[in-house]
Amino acid sequence: MDATRPDRGGRERLVVIGGDAAGMSAASQARRLRDPERLEIIAFERGHFTSFSACGIPYWVGGDVAERDELIARTPEEHRARGIDLRMRTEVTEIDVAAARVRARDVDSGTESWTSYDKLVIATGARPVRPELPGMDARGVHGVQTLDDGQALLDTLATTQGRRAVVVGAGYIGVEMAEALLNRGYEVTVLNRGTEPMATLDPDMGRLVHEAMEGMGITMVNGAEVTEVLTGAGGRVRGVVAEGPEGSGRTEYPADVVVLGIGVRPETALAKAAGLPLGAHGGLLTDLAMRVRGHENIWAGGDCVEVLDLVSGSERHIALGTHANKQGQVIGTNAGGGYATFPGVVGTAVSKVCALEIARTGLREKDARRAGLQYVTVTIESSSRAGYYPGAAPMTVKMLAERRTGRLLGTQIVGREGAAKRVDVAAVALTAGMTVERMTALDLGYAPPFSPVWDPVLVAARKATAAVRAQGA
Amino acid sequence: MDATRPDRGGRERLVVIGGDAAGMSAASQARRLRDPERLEIIAFERGHFTSFSACGIPYWVGGDVAERDELIARTPEEHRARGIDLRMRTEVTEIDVAAARVRARDVDSGTESWTSYDKLVIATGARPVRPELPGMDARGVHGVQTLDDGQALLDTLATTQGRRAVVVGAGYIGVEMAEALLNRGYEVTVLNRGTEPMATLDPDMGRLVHEAMEGMGITMVNGAEVTEVLTGAGGRVRGVVAEGPEGSGRTEYPADVVVLGIGVRPETALAKAAGLPLGAHGGLLTDLAMRVRGHENIWAGGDCVEVLDLVSGSERHIALGTHANKQGQVIGTNAGGGYATFPGVVGTAVSKVCALEIARTGLREKDARRAGLQYVTVTIESSSRAGYYPGAAPMTVKMLAERRTGRLLGTQIVGREGAAKRVDVAAVALTAGMTVERMTALDLGYAPPFSPVWDPVLVAARKATAAVRAQGA
Repeated sequence: MDATRPDRGGRERLVVIGGDAAGMSAASQARRLRDPERLEIIAFERGHFTSFSACGIPYWVGGDVAERDELIARTPEEHRARGIDLRMRTEVTEIDVAAARVRARDVDSGTESWTSYDKLVIATGARPVRPELPGMDARGVHGVQTLDDGQALLDTLATTQGRRAVVVGAGYIGVEMAEALLNRGYEVTVLNRGTEPMATLDPDMGRLVHEAMEGMGITMVNGAEVTEVLTGAGGRVRGVVAEGPEGSGRTEYPADVVVLGIGVRPETALAKAAGLPLGAHGGLLTDLAMRVRGHENIWAGGDCVEVLDLVSGSERHIALGTHANKQGQVIGTNAGGGYATFPGVVGTAVSKVCALEIARTGLREKDARRAGLQYVTVTIESSSRAGYYPGAAPMTVKMLAERRTGRLLGTQIVGREGAAKRVDVAAVALTAGMTVERMTALDLGYAPPFSPVWDPVLVAARKATAAVRAQGA
Repeated sequence: MDATRPDRGGRERLVVIGGDAAGMSAASQARRLRDPERLEIIAFERGHFTSFSACGIPYWVGGDVAERDELIARTPEEHRARGIDLRMRTEVTEIDVAAARVRARDVDSGTESWTSYDKLVIATGARPVRPELPGMDARGVHGVQTLDDGQALLDTLATTQGRRAVVVGAGYIGVEMAEALLNRGYEVTVLNRGTEPMATLDPDMGRLVHEAMEGMGITMVNGAEVTEVLTGAGGRVRGVVAEGPEGSGRTEYPADVVVLGIGVRPETALAKAAGLPLGAHGGLLTDLAMRVRGHENIWAGGDCVEVLDLVSGSERHIALGTHANKQGQVIGTNAGGGYATFPGVVGTAVSKVCALEIARTGLREKDARRAGLQYVTVTIESSSRAGYYPGAAPMTVKMLAERRTGRLLGTQIVGREGAAKRVDVAAVALTAGMTVERMTALDLGYAPPFSPVWDPVLVAARKATAAVRAQGA
C-alpha cells in the first residue's frame, strides 16, 4: 500500500484513471515531456484493454474489420514499454481530493489500496444508456460500447439461427449497427423514439436518412418507445415491444438479436462522490486547459467531461474519440509542465449507413432557438463531382445563418461519396466566425473528379447569403 | 452598325466580350438583377461554344465523359432564351475606351461593326503557350484548351495506328492528359522542363507524383527542354526532340501523337491595345469589385485577369474555372446595380492522375521566400481512413507555417482517395489567417470510414506547431 503524500524526493506522481483514449493520450504526452526520473505515471484501467477504438466496433461486428485487435491502437504492454505504470483490471473506487489520493480495487482479487498523487487525470469515459425495462437481461440483448460487448454480440450472431435483428435507437451507433447487421445478412428493424433517425440532424435532413435506409431494406419505425423485451426459450430474446408510433398502440417486433444504441452518459459517479463540479449533462466541468474547475492539480478529458460549444456558447456532452484524443494531448502537455488548451468544439460529426454519408456541424434549428439566435435556413441539392463526371452523386446541404449578421451557424450534409468530409469546410468557417457571404468566396479545390465548379458548400453559402439579405432587419 | 453613344432612353447597354465561364456568368447574373427593359446585354463570342468546361476536356479525351456536349453547361440558345443578345462567331477586334464602344467582326463573313456600351465586361480568357519550334504544325500535335482542340485530338487518336504518345509539360493539363492517353491505351512519355512534375508543388512533393506516375507505367522525363517536333510521312508527327536532362544531350522520343500541356497566358491583346492596365503576368488588373483599375464602367474576370493572392499579398495569374465563375458572378452583381466583391484567392488547386490525388493551397517554399516570409516546413504521412478500416490509403501532407507567428502559409497533399479535398480545410484556415496551433484544435469530422482519429491535416498542424516552437525567435 502506498503511503499518502510521501516525500518523493522531487519526483512527481501523475495518476490517471481510465486507460482509453483521453487517459492514455494524456499519459503518453506527459511521458514525452517528462522523463521517469522526474515524473512517475500510474494509470488504472478496470477493463481488459487500453486505447481501443469504440467507434470501430460497428465495422468489426459488420465484418469490415476482421479482428478485434485491429481496433486496439496501443496495448498495455506497449504503454508499459514507454514508461507508464499501467495497472489493468484495477478499478478506482474513490477519489480523496483532500488527501490527494485514490483508492483502487483489483477487480479479480478484490484487494484495495490507496495511491497518492501530485497530479490526477480523470478519464472515466461514458456509460451506455440502458433503460430499466422488463426483459433487458435476456440473452441476445447487447450494448456495443466495449470490445467485450462487441465480442458478446458476435458470439450471439454466430450461434443464433434466426435472422431478425432489432436495433433500439437511431443515432450514430444505431444506424451504424443497422448497417453492420444488414451486412451480416439480417433483416433489420430500427426502433426510433424520435421524429426521424439521426436526431443530431434537423428532422428534414433526418428524413433523407430515413428514406435512404428504407431503400437499403432497413425497416425504420419512428415514434416508437420501447417498453419491454420479450424472452423466449432458454432465456433468449424473442422480441421487442414498443408503444407507438402515435395511434398505433402496442406493437411486437420479433427479434433474434437486439442491439441497444441509445447513446451514452458521462461516467462521473466517482467524480460526483468526490465533490467535483458537474454540469447540466452530468459531465465534469473543466477550464480551457482541461483542469477540473477549482482544482489546480486535477484534469479531466474524454467522454466524462462537458465541452464548450463555440457556436452556442454553452456546454455540451459529446462522446467522440477525436475529442478525447485532443483533450488527452492537452492534459498531458499541461500535466507534463507545458501549456496547451482545448478551446471547444463546433459540434462536427460524420457517419455513414452503407453508401449514405451523413454529416453535421454547428447548430441545428432547435439549438439555435435555444441559444436565443434568430436565423435563416436554406437547403440546396448539388453533386459530389462535376455533373458530367462518372460517379457524380447527389448531395443535399442545409445551412443555417444568423439573421442580420449572416454568421454561419450550422451545416448539415446528406449524400453519397464525398458528402461527409465536406462538412469540414463549414467546421473551419464556424471556428473562424465567418459569415455565409464571406464563405461564398472561399477558394475550395475544384476539378471535375472532385467537385462541381461551385462546390456544394459554396452553393449553400450563396443561397444563405441571399436569404440573409432578403430577410433584412 | 450601331451608332456610338446613342440616347437609349434610360435603358443601359452591357457589352460582354467572351462567352465562356466569366463572361456568361456575369451576363446571367446581371440579367437576374435587371430586366431587359432596363438593361440590354450583348455578348460576343468568337468560337462555336459558350459556357463549356475546359477542365473536363482531359476526361472527354480519356473516355470518362462520352460526349462533347456534356461539357457544355449552357448553350447559346439557352443564353438567348434568358434574354442575352449573344453573337456567336463574332470576334471583338478593338476596344475604344474613349468612345465607349467595341468593334466586332463576323468571323465567317468578315463584316465589321461598332457597338457602343454603357458598361463593358472583358472576359477574353487565356491562350495556350505554344512554343515556336520547328515542326509544331505537324499533324498530330494538339493543344487541349478548347472543345475544337479536344475533338481534333480525338480524331487523331481514332485515325492513328501507333500507340506512342508524348505529352509536353507536367502541370495540371499535362498529368491529366497523361492519364487520358493511358486510359486510351497509349504508351505515354511526359517531357517536363522542371525538376519534378507538378511545379505547383514543392519538388519534394512533386517527386511523389513522379514516382506514382512511373508506377502507373507513364515515363516521366524531368529536365527535358523540347527543341523540335519531327515530322514524318504525310506531314504527321513522328517524334519529339528534347535537350536534357542535364548531361544526356539531345534525345529523340518517337511519337504518334503529341499533346501540349504547357500552360496558358492571359489573353489580353485587346485590353493592352486599348491602354488598359496589365500586371506583371500580363493579366488585367482590377479592384476587388472586379472593375478594371481606373475604369468605372469596365469590369474584367476569368482567365484574362490577375488575382490577389491573400497569403503572399501579391498578384498572380491562375486560370481556373471556379475563379472565373465566382468573378463572373461578382461582375454581374455589380454591373446589374448590386454590390459584391471577389476578395482574392489562397491558391487552391486539386487534380488527379488515375487514383493519385494531388492538392495544394497557399504558398510553396519558393513563394514564401519570394514574399519575404520566413517559415518552417513539416511533412507527415497519415491515412485517409482509420488504419483498420478497409480502403485506408496513405496520404502525405506537407505544411508551411510562418516562423514566430505560426500562421499557416501553405499545405500540399499527395495521396489516394480522400486526399485532394482535404486541402479545403487548409484553404479555409488560410483565408481566416489561422495559426497551425489553432488548427490543431479544429473540430473536423471523424468516423473510421472517413478519417483516422487525428485527421492527417491535424497531424501536420501538430507537427508544424512543434516546429514553430522549436525554432523559437
